[in-house]
Parts: sequence; C-alpha cells; structure tokens
Amino acid sequence: MSDLTPTTRSRVKRLRERGAYDFDTIASILDAGLLCHVGYVIDGHPYVTPTAYWRDRDHVYWHGSSASRMLRTLEKGVDACFTVSHLDGLVLARSGFNHSINYRSVMLFGRARKIEGEGAKLRALESFLERMFPGRWQQLRPATTKEIKATTVLRMAIEEGSAKIRTGWPHDDEDDYGWPVWAGVVPVRAVTQQPLPDERLVGAKEPPDYLADLSHLGLNRK
Amino acid sequence: MSDLTPTTRSRVKRLRERGAYDFDTIASILDAGLLCHVGYVIDGHPYVTPTAYWRDRDHVYWHGSSASRMLRTLEKGVDACFTVSHLDGLVLARSGFNHSINYRSVMLFGRARKIEGEGAKLRALESFLERMFPGRWQQLRPATTKEIKATTVLRMAIEEGSAKIRTGWPHDDEDDYGWPVWAGVVPVRAVTQQPLPDERLVGAKEPPDYLADLSHLGLNRK
Repeated sequence: MSDLTPTTRSRVKRLRERGAYDFDTIASILDAGLLCHVGYVIDGHPYVTPTAYWRDRDHVYWHGSSASRMLRTLEKGVDACFTVSHLDGLVLARSGFNHSINYRSVMLFGRARKIEGEGAKLRALESFLERMFPGRWQQLRPATTKEIKATTVLRMAIEEGSAKIRTGWPHDDEDDYGWPVWAGVVPVRAVTQQPLPDERLVGAKEPPDYLADLSHLGLNRK
Repeated sequence: MSDLTPTTRSRVKRLRERGAYDFDTIASILDAGLLCHVGYVIDGHPYVTPTAYWRDRDHVYWHGSSASRMLRTLEKGVDACFTVSHLDGLVLARSGFNHSINYRSVMLFGRARKIEGEGAKLRALESFLERMFPGRWQQLRPATTKEIKATTVLRMAIEEGSAKIRTGWPHDDEDDYGWPVWAGVVPVRAVTQQPLPDERLVGAKEPPDYLADLSHLGLNRK
C-alpha cells in the first residue's frame, strides 16, 4: 500500500514531529480501534457522528441504517473527514503548560462511496464481523435480503490524511526539572470485562473462544 | 441548568428512544470523558479534531496552542459541532443485523468564544487541571505570562444538542431466540494502569493521592 503525500488539509502543522504519513502507521492506528468520528457538512453546518468502522486493505468502511442522516448525506459523495483517536495516557509535567496526553490519531479526508449490490454489501458486512469475531459469521442466523436492503455500507479510500502520535514522558522546561512535584505518565487502556451471556441463550453460556482475546480491536482483557 | 430543546440539527431521528435532552444526562456523559471530537468547516471542507476538554457549569471548554488551525478557525465564531462518545460494550446478537454497540454520546452545536484576559484564561486552565487532579495546581511551577499568551481557551454553551445512549442486551427478532449461537454483551471500560514516575523526579516517586482514583474522568483503576 502506498504512503500518503501530505496536502494542505492533511499536513500536521503544529508539533510536526508528531505527524506521520506512512501507510503502515496509519493502518495500525486504524486497526487498533472500533469507533471513528465522521465529519460532514449540511447547509454549511458541521456534524460529527461517532460510528463503528473497519479497515480492509486501503479503504475504511462504516455502515448503518439506510435511513441515517449521516449516511444519506455522505452517500451523495460530499467531502468527509474521518477521524480515529486512542487515548493512551495522561502526561503530568512540572508546569501546567507542559501537561499533555499520549494519544494515537488518524485524520483522513475524502469522499465516501456506497457499496452497491446485495452480494458486495454482504461480503463487506461479513468482513466487518469476521474482523471482530473470527468464525462467528457462519454461526449466525443468515442475513435476509430485507436486512441487507435496510443497511448502507460506505467506504473511503485511505489516500489523503495523516497520523499524529504522542508517546512517552513529560517534556519539561530544563529549569523546571528541579521543581518538587510528582511528574510522569498515567497509562490509559481500553479493556474488556467478562462477557455477559444473554438470559435467553439456548446453547452454552460459556463465551466462544473468539471473545477470549480482542486485542486486535485495541481492547485488552482486564 | 436548563434542559435542551430539540432542534432540526439536534433531534435524534434514528432510534429516537435512545435520545435525551435533559441537562443532567448530557452533563454526566460530558463529565465521564476527557477527549472530544470538534467539527468545523474550512473552505467548505469538514475537519474533525480530537482534543481534551472539560465542562464547567453550562459550558464546555477546550484549549491549545494559539497557533492551532482548529482554534484559530473556531475563535472567529464559526459553527462547531462538539461530540463526545464513550464505548461501553459490544453487543452480540443471533443475527449480524442485530449486532450493536453500547455507548453514551453527546453532540453539541454552537459557536465557540475565546476566553479573553490573562486572569480569566488562567482561572479556566486552573479549573481544567483541578477537575483532573484536585490539589495539583498549587503544587506546580506557576504559569508565566508568556505561557498564558501562547494558549487559547475556547468555550461553548451547552444549549443546542442531544445525548444518545444504548445500554443493555441484544434485541433479537423474536424468531431468532432459538438460534443456537452465543449472544450477550462484552463490557468495555477505559482504565488507568499504575502511574509511571518520570526518571528525573527530585521528590517522592510515590504517585500523589489524587492519582489513586480517576473515575471522575471515566477512568477506572485496572
């Protein structure tokens, strides 16, 4: 996959040493998440909608009800901004000014396209579910034509955008290192807890193996 | 604080039973987070920038370098969309279609205003830091005039917007409850890990008491 060329929109201007444009860095940040924030414009007003997403090769995908305002707007091919961010830590410095957070984020710009055709839509939804829970798709009650019709799937190419990353320790002013206050990092993680079986389960209550490790979604086991 | 009146922009249309407009619900979701996604428009293009935020009474606040494109755009008083979302769980149903996620989100619409004056800015920054780490502000190397000048603080009134919440179990089609696949919820939480002291610390390495419990930021102890 090609690395991205910075554009007026995508170049990281502030703290440019935190910016990255290589495909692998961007893909790894996208793959460590589940919830994106999609920005779009209606009548000149900005909207930011959180939604689940997935990556497949050089595209990001998201979906929802065909009646959704967000999807009905974006399927027209208007400009979108697709942002994913992970909070990794709180950075406590000796001065308020040098406090920070550790994070990994990606901003992508482009226009989304609707996946057309029942077969193509179904394959996209299967790849979403299989990315989350490998092996589960075949266990489910099969999708119906009505359900597929009621679902819109969009995708956007990963071709204009950037990653921005902060890691590590506080960067204090040299004169401040002698200041006697605690400084350091509080790591933050997203974790899963023990799966809770639905009370109307007819089979085993024991969670399936594919729930044992969701670290591919950026979720660690508590 | 007043509850919010739904508008064309803020009314929850899809799955309207998930929508809420009362101030306390909105405030509690805002208070359980640290990272928002701010949407704005430059030359007709949408941008979504993740940034730290805090709430004080009926306003949300965010800040950053005075050189930031996001802040320089918003301080002009253009339209903004301010979104906060928390991922609470993965919801596994008997059909792919009924899979879902549990979440709490808030979308606010409005225009941001810049906090003017060194004193007012300093008080806003103090309230941010004190919300995160009560008692820490007085321990820090005091802010300088130069640092305050280099920082822009914006605030936006909580007056147009809505919350959207999904909690609980999968909602399967009645006919599907007999399907023999595991169904239920995988709870997701944001947690902190053991604080890591900076290696150049001059005082105690022991983390201060205000780091023992960060649940007021939506962060539980691992």
